[in-house]
Amino acid sequence: MNNYPYPIKIRAVWWREEDKSICWINTKELPFKEEIICSSDPGRVAKAIIEMEIRGAPAIGVAAALAIASYAYKVKTRDIDSFYREVDSAINILWNTRPTAHNLFWALRRMRRKLHEAVEKGVSVDEVVEILENEAKNIMDEDIRANIKLGEYGAELVPDNSTILTHCNAGALATAAFGTAEGIMRAAWYKGKKIKVIATETRPVLQGARLTVWELVKEGIPVTLITDNMAGYVIRKGLVDLVIVGADRITSEGYVVNKIGTYMIALAAKRKGIPFYVAAPTSTIDLESTINDIVIEERNPDEVRKVLEKYITLPDVSALNYAFDITDPDLVTAIITEKGVIKPPYNENLPKILKK
Amino acid sequence: MNNYPYPIKIRAVWWREEDKSICWINTKELPFKEEIICSSDPGRVAKAIIEMEIRGAPAIGVAAALAIASYAYKVKTRDIDSFYREVDSAINILWNTRPTAHNLFWALRRMRRKLHEAVEKGVSVDEVVEILENEAKNIMDEDIRANIKLGEYGAELVPDNSTILTHCNAGALATAAFGTAEGIMRAAWYKGKKIKVIATETRPVLQGARLTVWELVKEGIPVTLITDNMAGYVIRKGLVDLVIVGADRITSEGYVVNKIGTYMIALAAKRKGIPFYVAAPTSTIDLESTINDIVIEERNPDEVRKVLEKYITLPDVSALNYAFDITDPDLVTAIITEKGVIKPPYNENLPKILKK
Repeated sequence: MNNYPYPIKIRAVWWREEDKSICWINTKELPFKEEIICSSDPGRVAKAIIEMEIRGAPAIGVAAALAIASYAYKVKTRDIDSFYREVDSAINILWNTRPTAHNLFWALRRMRRKLHEAVEKGVSVDEVVEILENEAKNIMDEDIRANIKLGEYGAELVPDNSTILTHCNAGALATAAFGTAEGIMRAAWYKGKKIKVIATETRPVLQGARLTVWELVKEGIPVTLITDNMAGYVIRKGLVDLVIVGADRITSEGYVVNKIGTYMIALAAKRKGIPFYVAAPTSTIDLESTINDIVIEERNPDEVRKVLEKYITLPDVSALNYAFDITDPDLVTAIITEKGVIKPPYNENLPKILKK
Repeated sequence: MNNYPYPIKIRAVWWREEDKSICWINTKELPFKEEIICSSDPGRVAKAIIEMEIRGAPAIGVAAALAIASYAYKVKTRDIDSFYREVDSAINILWNTRPTAHNLFWALRRMRRKLHEAVEKGVSVDEVVEILENEAKNIMDEDIRANIKLGEYGAELVPDNSTILTHCNAGALATAAFGTAEGIMRAAWYKGKKIKVIATETRPVLQGARLTVWELVKEGIPVTLITDNMAGYVIRKGLVDLVIVGADRITSEGYVVNKIGTYMIALAAKRKGIPFYVAAPTSTIDLESTINDIVIEERNPDEVRKVLEKYITLPDVSALNYAFDITDPDLVTAIITEKGVIKPPYNENLPKILKK
């Protein structure tokens, strides 16, 4: 099931065969500590997702699927109806962790469908457990393969000797492995293109400063860190050739929900006339949804009042903490998926590519 | 010389009569500690400016003038030529602290002119010392009065029950007192307008989170903190009625040099169609300069790699640290000065108001 065309140096989540558990790298501790955590407890995995030990829409989806598969091994009962209820309640626990990550619901729906089908067919608990393991592993493997395909489509759009600006972390640490936006950088790099990356720090949780920097340094790709508010000036000054970001959700009209700050970078790219690309597997695209369905997650305002657990302001001041923002379709040059590059008009071209 | 029409609750720099020294509040320690430092040593004041104990273009100008006046008292010689050389070299020390703050050069030129005139007239050292003290005090008093005038002009543009977004700190702590952008908020507030403020944290040095929040809480004006990258989304969402920022320098064409991040906020305001106001005393406007003369200060990249002295990334990663950016004239709804509100076209209307 492995055998990928590029080295897989970093994995965010994976399956440990010995004890049928799910393992992940605790991204909260990076880059200061490389902590690995393994578990079979859906509650523990839900906590890891809520507290952002595991983050990034595709990684969350894969983790949720693996958590269900792992938990299935731990369910004691051999009565198929009790088994169904227990696994279904684990799915519900994971369902309620992050409201914006479309891949989470997509992955859990796949697991639930397999569970449902198997139970309908009347197979044994042991067989269902195996079916769930396979489905979760497929979701993981498909994610990695999709990122590699996506990376190769995207790499064609990256000129040699160019500088890419990225926001947050749409890297190996946001997916099962390889990454989406960073997957494009990896593919371009392995194809011999001399690229440089400018990474925004991405307050409040600093995924750019902590994760993207760590990932690109591990990969050997030159990276320069800036604060979020410098993106506009470095674009204006001509230091950036193209922008590539990930997405947590893309609506049927092509609105892109991504890490807070994405919208302002898109505005700066538009003003300067440089391409603004969104890298996302098709599992991120929700043709059922429109801009009116978007719920922007508001997280604990203490994340804004603090940096790495230390207050940067008066501890009792009011603060807002929107985790994502919305970028309008007219600001997006193209959406790069594992099925190809989608250009506007998105309301026409998104359904076409999803049918492929 | 005092007797201002509004309470002056916060001063950034002031003159201490007892020992003819300059005092300032160390803004680096705010809001955690309210440390007052006094000195007569131009080297110490230069250090305070470079290390941003004193910051904000008008405050830097006032501090430099007061430092020269204070130093003049400490010069031992009674030979007028030696005195001239010593004070002139102190002016040079202060001149080379921050390249972007136009008010710094403006204030030091005023001090140098007085020094030069007095020496030309052949007056005694003691008389020159007094002349310099008066000039520095005038610069300080004029700054406060200018901010109050500016605040009153600006307050007319602030609707009742509106929410103002501001960036960095263009407050009492960025001027001698009262502030420019915050001066408008103060004037509107004292006139009974129910305003709310959204303050960006302003990485890397966090002037918004540390100073603007502290200042507005002291003043009793409701304030909500966001990260810099949230500004676009809160504007897009309709939570902001108008933006008011300060300026470090305004060119003859109306390009606004201000804290890094200002440009992206201006883009978001333009896109949403809300007013983007720049509050600045006319001493910030440099009719001699064009966009080609702008030197953007690059500060120590460790400011980006760290938050409040703590690393947030790999300590040896490359980082950029542009302290300011440039906002194009077409993004600026109006420039609010102590002489009135200036609207586009700025190349025509800036000279008109400066002649007043």
